[in-house]
Amino acid sequence: MPQAIHQTPSAYGYPLLIKQLLHSALATASGQEIIYGQRRLSYAGFYERVQRLANALKEMGLQPGNTVAVMDWDSNRYLECFFAVPMMGCVLQTVNVRLSPEQIAYTLNHAQADVLLVNSDFLPLLKQIRGELTTLTRCVWLTDDATPCPRGPGFAGEYEELLAQAEPACDFPDFDENARATTFYTTGTTGLPKGVYFSHRQLVLHTLATTAGLALAPQQGRFHRDDVYMPLTPMFHVHAWGLPYVATMAGVKQVYPGRYVPDTICRLIREEKVTFSHCVPTILQMVLTSEQAREADLSGWKMIIGGSAMTGSLAKMARDRGIDVFTGYGMSETCPVLTLAQVPTEELGGEREAAIRVKTGRPLPLVDLRTVDGEMQDCPRDGSTTGEVVVRAPWLTQGYLHQAEASEELWRGGWLHTQDIGHLDAEGYLQVTDRIKDVIKTGGEWVSSLQIEDIIARHPAVAETAVIGIQDGKWGERPVALVVLKKDAAAVSEDDIREHVRAAAEAGAISRYGVPDRVRFVAELARTSVGKLNKRVMREQYPSS
Amino acid sequence: MPQAIHQTPSAYGYPLLIKQLLHSALATASGQEIIYGQRRLSYAGFYERVQRLANALKEMGLQPGNTVAVMDWDSNRYLECFFAVPMMGCVLQTVNVRLSPEQIAYTLNHAQADVLLVNSDFLPLLKQIRGELTTLTRCVWLTDDATPCPRGPGFAGEYEELLAQAEPACDFPDFDENARATTFYTTGTTGLPKGVYFSHRQLVLHTLATTAGLALAPQQGRFHRDDVYMPLTPMFHVHAWGLPYVATMAGVKQVYPGRYVPDTICRLIREEKVTFSHCVPTILQMVLTSEQAREADLSGWKMIIGGSAMTGSLAKMARDRGIDVFTGYGMSETCPVLTLAQVPTEELGGEREAAIRVKTGRPLPLVDLRTVDGEMQDCPRDGSTTGEVVVRAPWLTQGYLHQAEASEELWRGGWLHTQDIGHLDAEGYLQVTDRIKDVIKTGGEWVSSLQIEDIIARHPAVAETAVIGIQDGKWGERPVALVVLKKDAAAVSEDDIREHVRAAAEAGAISRYGVPDRVRFVAELARTSVGKLNKRVMREQYPSS
Repeated sequence: MPQAIHQTPSAYGYPLLIKQLLHSALATASGQEIIYGQRRLSYAGFYERVQRLANALKEMGLQPGNTVAVMDWDSNRYLECFFAVPMMGCVLQTVNVRLSPEQIAYTLNHAQADVLLVNSDFLPLLKQIRGELTTLTRCVWLTDDATPCPRGPGFAGEYEELLAQAEPACDFPDFDENARATTFYTTGTTGLPKGVYFSHRQLVLHTLATTAGLALAPQQGRFHRDDVYMPLTPMFHVHAWGLPYVATMAGVKQVYPGRYVPDTICRLIREEKVTFSHCVPTILQMVLTSEQAREADLSGWKMIIGGSAMTGSLAKMARDRGIDVFTGYGMSETCPVLTLAQVPTEELGGEREAAIRVKTGRPLPLVDLRTVDGEMQDCPRDGSTTGEVVVRAPWLTQGYLHQAEASEELWRGGWLHTQDIGHLDAEGYLQVTDRIKDVIKTGGEWVSSLQIEDIIARHPAVAETAVIGIQDGKWGERPVALVVLKKDAAAVSEDDIREHVRAAAEAGAISRYGVPDRVRFVAELARTSVGKLNKRVMREQYPSS
Repeated sequence: MPQAIHQTPSAYGYPLLIKQLLHSALATASGQEIIYGQRRLSYAGFYERVQRLANALKEMGLQPGNTVAVMDWDSNRYLECFFAVPMMGCVLQTVNVRLSPEQIAYTLNHAQADVLLVNSDFLPLLKQIRGELTTLTRCVWLTDDATPCPRGPGFAGEYEELLAQAEPACDFPDFDENARATTFYTTGTTGLPKGVYFSHRQLVLHTLATTAGLALAPQQGRFHRDDVYMPLTPMFHVHAWGLPYVATMAGVKQVYPGRYVPDTICRLIREEKVTFSHCVPTILQMVLTSEQAREADLSGWKMIIGGSAMTGSLAKMARDRGIDVFTGYGMSETCPVLTLAQVPTEELGGEREAAIRVKTGRPLPLVDLRTVDGEMQDCPRDGSTTGEVVVRAPWLTQGYLHQAEASEELWRGGWLHTQDIGHLDAEGYLQVTDRIKDVIKTGGEWVSSLQIEDIIARHPAVAETAVIGIQDGKWGERPVALVVLKKDAAAVSEDDIREHVRAAAEAGAISRYGVPDRVRFVAELARTSVGKLNKRVMREQYPSS
């Protein structure tokens, strides 16, 4: 075996800790600004507040290993928590404020949250769930409109007052780089939210590799020290994709927008000269179609788009306004960034430029990304053969908190299974084409249930349809179609529908394996509480074809 | 204590290993070129050669933990060794071919080198020392001019032939990221060479942080994916400052120049459109004053200067040719890069631009750099108060191989002591002013022996002088001057010399603590074999004042 220099990383005397991200920024950019509302902090002032926050939380009795939860809009306060809480050895829980009250209560209890920093906007919600919170001892009051802190033993005080009273200097200790730094909860369409967690080491490595991946771009999609950063994905969602850590390490000017209001966003872009953001397609659409954006100069705004696929028409709308949009890819379990679709110099202005911006992207440094078949064999990198996207990188979650089975499933074969289906090409571009739960594995091929549904829905008698994969001893899975007929539809048989799909398959629209074995006519399709198709329930309803 | 997610990094399933630097480059830039002489490899072709080399070395019986030494000029072969040797779990020893034959033999034995890859240019040297090499079992023959491989049991064969015979695919294993990857030897003016060694983890982190530090620069001193890289500091010296790893991870075109001949260098810049290099001032001077450079277009060539301070006049000469020169700082023990002096956008074309380029630089991400007094207290960051430069970063050597005492001295107080004296300013710029061995710690101040010598040398009776620090119970150290008088000098007393220095101190040239306690008139000054002043010997000769 190779000789290790030391047995443990801590023996190195330099564990990878979130505090280390601050060294060069504080040394080189102490006067740089961090802006939220009327508040303009210097990096030096920000760091003093980080130290005061840690001291205030210590005063409240928090010990290393305790969990501090936050419910806030995107603000300098949240950024202070991003650093102070993990740096004192506690775990930062970023609470998804869009979950239902029951789910929020579940996640706070599941993560054993000790203290909750809560924006006054969420007081009604807090009142509703307070009785159910079994581990929470105190709240800290955050307010943008001077709403007074509720009195009572449950509240430790108002954030700014606590900071003002706290000591301004704090000596942050070294500890094991594998210590938990952050946790938050993913939400599928079914089941309870699952907790993912990241260590100091993982966040530092994600920050370094994402910085390298962004900054190495020669022209388009490039991040550098003169950029002005503003997040437009919430800080509760995978640490705003980790970009606040990137921006802070780089020492750039940062602007926090609070809630996402087109008016505010457009004003900040104009007044603070924002140049670098990231958001989901819906937010970009909202900004571009807002009244305020019509007047605004958005040229030179660089924008990573993720969360769901950017359509060509949205990309064009953004490009027409001079926005440098490009796709990024990842998920809660991957910290999140895995790939970026920056446009290479030689493609600028060329035929492929528009297509590249909406590709899923190329892997960051250190990311080992494959598309594999059911036996974990690599698919050819031909830009068309699809397989499941599996990945290794030093910043992927090790699993779900207290959910051993789901964790093993996530990591089977030693690779993180993204549940996405896609293809790679010779230049390293990944194109995700489907979610795996929407794909049926049959006869050694992946068939998209969405494509089959699309075909069936074109039949004149069909009101709506859902295609599910049913276990099959010979083929692995076989597609079964559930069909709701139009009220006034002419008589139609199972074979009519199958013949309709077969004709499309023969025309090359889908694989011939995609022709359903069975078509079941049903009165309605199972749906989740928010109205999405619930295929898990359908598979339970129809376990065999 | 904070909870660790896992006990050891290997439990993560993703140790930081040199092989991980290749993932994104091979996926996204497999057709990019690596050039040496007439040889033009693609990255895919390069990786096949890396695999063949590992298989050839395995065929020779090499096991993980064994040491493979290399004596070669800068070539694609050396780059292949940078990857293949550590990736198979062996230690790469990069032999400094400028050491004396005795020193080379010492370092090969000390590192327990098992196999030596040796360029045919070094055959005479090898013959001279072969009998002294106690651990070496075989050599591999490297040649650029088809000199045939010597026959005999000591030679395993010629590099290209071995590669051609080896299997083209190799499955590189995962192992402990703290395993030793590389070693080489530092040389002071006195004593035996000291072995420093770096782990996979350290090299990966140095690569990520150096890439981030270079790529984040908005304009000047910036590295990106369209650059063409050519090293001009030898690959045997701190892995050519680690830049070949940076270039490979980024997937850029790479050009290896062999020996540093101005004609070749200028031709490669022209023909291969080299845009990014690094070198010591001497090499830049050599290139700029060469016949060939007069005709060459050097504009846009980016160049990190390190090793010793760049003078303002050399910087100006380079700037007049359009070269984007800037200083980098580090040493063998620091992997090496700690700081870079890229010019910020707001200083471009301004009064300070020239001065910034020759500053020592600003810290890379993750680098915690301080200037401290004798009690390890921080000096004010005022751009003038000097102290010793001490540093922490995740890629610093843990010590010298088999030299516990020197290692403890290097790391006293938990910080790596650079032995450099300098000051920091509020913008994070470090300016190194002295080597510590040239500085006398007295009365709580640092006094530069070089400055005292400079003053004494101006006395009309003095031929040459050396000032040394002598231990003193009250003051820590006190300066003592050794003076060689001119042959025809008028009679001069100890007090005359002291008075001469005192006058200069009163005029503000140095601290009053710098006036020597004793002046000793001597016939000659102790020197090293290469003619440098040997202050270690002087301190032994004059242990007290």
